[in-house]
Amino acid sequence: MQGIKIVVIGGVAAGASFAARARRLNEAAQITLIERGPEVSFANCGLPYHIGGEIPTRAALAVQTPESLSALLKLEVRTNCEAIAIDLKAKQVQVKDVVSGTLHSLPYDKLMLAPGATPIRPPLPGLEDERVFTLRNLQDMDRILAATAEGMRAVVVGAGFIGLEMTEQLHRQGLRVHLVEQQPQVLPLLDPKMAALLDSELRHHDIQLHLGDQLTRCESDAEHVRCYLDSGQVLEADLVILSVGVRPDTALAKSAGLALGTAGHILVDAYQRTSDPDIYAAGDAVETADRLFPDIPARVPMGGPANRQGRVAADHLFMPDKARPYPGSLGTGIVRAFKVVAGITGWSEKRLQAAGQAYESVTLNDSHHASYYPGAQPLTLKILWEPDSGRLLGAQVTGFEGVDKRIDVLATALAASMTIEDLCHLELAYAPPFGAAKDIVNLAGFAACNRDDGLVTHVTQLPADPRIQLIDVRGKPLAEAFPAPLAGVTNIPFPQLRAHLNQLDRNRPVITLCAFGKMSYFAARVLQQNGFKVASFSGGLKGNLDPRSPAKLPTP
Amino acid sequence: MQGIKIVVIGGVAAGASFAARARRLNEAAQITLIERGPEVSFANCGLPYHIGGEIPTRAALAVQTPESLSALLKLEVRTNCEAIAIDLKAKQVQVKDVVSGTLHSLPYDKLMLAPGATPIRPPLPGLEDERVFTLRNLQDMDRILAATAEGMRAVVVGAGFIGLEMTEQLHRQGLRVHLVEQQPQVLPLLDPKMAALLDSELRHHDIQLHLGDQLTRCESDAEHVRCYLDSGQVLEADLVILSVGVRPDTALAKSAGLALGTAGHILVDAYQRTSDPDIYAAGDAVETADRLFPDIPARVPMGGPANRQGRVAADHLFMPDKARPYPGSLGTGIVRAFKVVAGITGWSEKRLQAAGQAYESVTLNDSHHASYYPGAQPLTLKILWEPDSGRLLGAQVTGFEGVDKRIDVLATALAASMTIEDLCHLELAYAPPFGAAKDIVNLAGFAACNRDDGLVTHVTQLPADPRIQLIDVRGKPLAEAFPAPLAGVTNIPFPQLRAHLNQLDRNRPVITLCAFGKMSYFAARVLQQNGFKVASFSGGLKGNLDPRSPAKLPTP
Repeated sequence: MQGIKIVVIGGVAAGASFAARARRLNEAAQITLIERGPEVSFANCGLPYHIGGEIPTRAALAVQTPESLSALLKLEVRTNCEAIAIDLKAKQVQVKDVVSGTLHSLPYDKLMLAPGATPIRPPLPGLEDERVFTLRNLQDMDRILAATAEGMRAVVVGAGFIGLEMTEQLHRQGLRVHLVEQQPQVLPLLDPKMAALLDSELRHHDIQLHLGDQLTRCESDAEHVRCYLDSGQVLEADLVILSVGVRPDTALAKSAGLALGTAGHILVDAYQRTSDPDIYAAGDAVETADRLFPDIPARVPMGGPANRQGRVAADHLFMPDKARPYPGSLGTGIVRAFKVVAGITGWSEKRLQAAGQAYESVTLNDSHHASYYPGAQPLTLKILWEPDSGRLLGAQVTGFEGVDKRIDVLATALAASMTIEDLCHLELAYAPPFGAAKDIVNLAGFAACNRDDGLVTHVTQLPADPRIQLIDVRGKPLAEAFPAPLAGVTNIPFPQLRAHLNQLDRNRPVITLCAFGKMSYFAARVLQQNGFKVASFSGGLKGNLDPRSPAKLPTP
Repeated sequence: MQGIKIVVIGGVAAGASFAARARRLNEAAQITLIERGPEVSFANCGLPYHIGGEIPTRAALAVQTPESLSALLKLEVRTNCEAIAIDLKAKQVQVKDVVSGTLHSLPYDKLMLAPGATPIRPPLPGLEDERVFTLRNLQDMDRILAATAEGMRAVVVGAGFIGLEMTEQLHRQGLRVHLVEQQPQVLPLLDPKMAALLDSELRHHDIQLHLGDQLTRCESDAEHVRCYLDSGQVLEADLVILSVGVRPDTALAKSAGLALGTAGHILVDAYQRTSDPDIYAAGDAVETADRLFPDIPARVPMGGPANRQGRVAADHLFMPDKARPYPGSLGTGIVRAFKVVAGITGWSEKRLQAAGQAYESVTLNDSHHASYYPGAQPLTLKILWEPDSGRLLGAQVTGFEGVDKRIDVLATALAASMTIEDLCHLELAYAPPFGAAKDIVNLAGFAACNRDDGLVTHVTQLPADPRIQLIDVRGKPLAEAFPAPLAGVTNIPFPQLRAHLNQLDRNRPVITLCAFGKMSYFAARVLQQNGFKVASFSGGLKGNLDPRSPAKLPTP
């Protein structure tokens, strides 16, 4: 391995991580890092935050300069260099200097491909206007920044992670923002009801949402870009951000003859080896295995997997007997839009449905820390699990504080193949500012086990069936101040329920409901044991109909 | 089970939890809850925070009143009632009304003992003064509140969780506080170096620390209580808080003949059954199994375990075929003192040492979220693991933000018997405000595996051996502004190290050091591959010598 020639194509997350680990494992390797852009190892997840001014200095995003990276890792760093061909037999990369246009060849013993992914530009008329942007690198960011000013109108197309971050940051800069999303919800990775709080938060900040709608074309003149939507609406904008997803940047890999997956990603094994034994690949351009269902491919264009894949490849290259395989991706993600945070790990309900996988789910609401300690904020948590084994399949959390903590706990639980029973007995840290004696994650385990044990039947919809008795068990003042937004509901506060059983018709089914889905469960237990056919409205009003429905009256 | 008579002794965490779950499982049971005090189901973890005014209203701590609890759960709630004897054969509890003094008997089919634990009052002269307090319930809290006023002097004895919380809250009320701790560190549950940041934070707020010292007696007059310490110091105080731990309140269980553990706790099986088949016990008064070493007893007087144990007992009583055993306790805990937060889960190094268990450990420093995003705060994380299996044995975290998240992730990992390898590939949530592409928990896995793979040798002390070359690899401006607080250190900034290898003596061992322990690892890899015998100073200056040592110069 002394003097082994390594070429790394791509100098951001996966490529830089691979190069750093390779250098630590081998001081003598000749490592050349090629990057098409002028910069390496920049914080691409931070780009929207500089546009909005939350990250005030651009330099903060340049984690390393080519010079500092070279000095740290004893690398040859060649920026503005694009790899245009790989000769697998000759083991050479053909490289083009994008400034001078000159070509040269780089021989390698081992090659790392970390080309990343390119923002998708849909093939629609009018998107070539220079006021229509995508955001991938510092140069894109600079261009967007140069084009924005207070009072302008922006159209953001796509309400995924980047779209939501850009929406908030443009609003922060004083722009009026329209957000267009093809799906009928924001953050389509989430199940629809779990996106309701984000939706409400965006509207609260005067973001104009166009859901279930899509851009069909743009028309530009000197003054504006006009965005034509499928619905017939026309949005006049000073700038347009396209954030409709990314596609793997694998033209080079394809033309070299490396095996690609059905969606165009580079295929790799658990040690990040491509179909060519001397070429590794890592990051947004590759397809790995799903961590929960190893037979299903995972394409997770996120910084965490990219960094760790780069490391796995370097370990395999220099210490193959000790390298640990990449265990697959969960698809953990998180986003903040204004004060609301939403996170996901593992599979959503809609993805499980689409894949025909059997699942169960519950949705819970609780405070992010002890409710008696000031500042407690509501959280909503949904978990999904396999019916027979109880193994967790996914989780989604939304709220204001402590979302990241619950997602990380649940991502850890998913990685450990934990079950709903295991969630019951997680021993999480509790002091009043930080948690509760029974954290919402424990409560999710309890609720799931209750369901599994037949203690409760849940419904997630309120059927419009006059035969069914809908009983709202919230306290009267709360039920009057925040009435359930549907007809035919009778209010019997839970503490009075046992004394008022005769008010109910034993021959008609009952659905109990409350704000959060907790008192309705208590009520369902009482009714079930008294011979009623009863179901509890899982997730309550908050989780289903009104994401801001409170559990208590606000103190005046 | 119809009409089964259940008596619950103790109406706070474990007892109230048991009663609530029992009611949900059985509407017909006759459940009587006996509580010695005037209140039930109060938030005992919140008591210090009301004393300091952070929880402004006392009513917030009374989670349920006897009346509301009774109405919610259809219980008979008897407050101010003390159980004074249990007749196991007759299955009766003798109960004394503590107000009237009258006695009566309560028959039971099943009994739950949840008597909790009593704050220890050391048998020292002078502690009977009414200005010497312990804190267990709302009445203690009221008395302390009534005795405090701005400008007073307080002595807090014991720097555990309650002692630290009381110290902060009394300071918040404007008192001058002395904190006396027998161990040479605050928060003795932590390993000593991990307590350094807390120590520094307390001193920064003018808390007078008396470590490695202890109270020997008090003398009182009308004006003051004088606290005599072992060191000879005499502290004059207006009030004294004793927070030196708790002992299980098991006199009743003992006199009834139930089996107790060696430290006086009630022995229970995994379903919380005592030695009498009709009596369950749960909470601070019981001894369960350690979650990691099931042969070792665990005595964890915390709200989380108490609540979950109460639930397990009710499940076992009413649905024995579906009840899930209590899996044992980890001892997860967290405390905030001013701006600093410290948490622990599983075993500490000193506990492993004392038990003769083999272990390895690493200490890491990193930011609580992406360092390029404003507001990143330093975190220090220590993990411990089993040498052969790599199984995690414990973790400690200190810092300002995000401590609870890492403790909860690691508590989940411990519960899942995860290894150091598993930590490397946790896929945690990353967006700039919430984490990093490689979270400190991942980094801990990397560092532990590097050690395991022989890539690095760590030292946790800097030996005073002139033969050893101590190389500080921080940048020169930082090394000059925050010099390493020891002699004989040569500064060679890491990027210059490879060019200056000739400055070093290849025949003498090298220890590399830096602020956080990261650059020193990089340097150790360079030196090791260049033939040096080298070790990296694990945890760096921050984790060993100066808990506020920065990784960068503050921007002016």
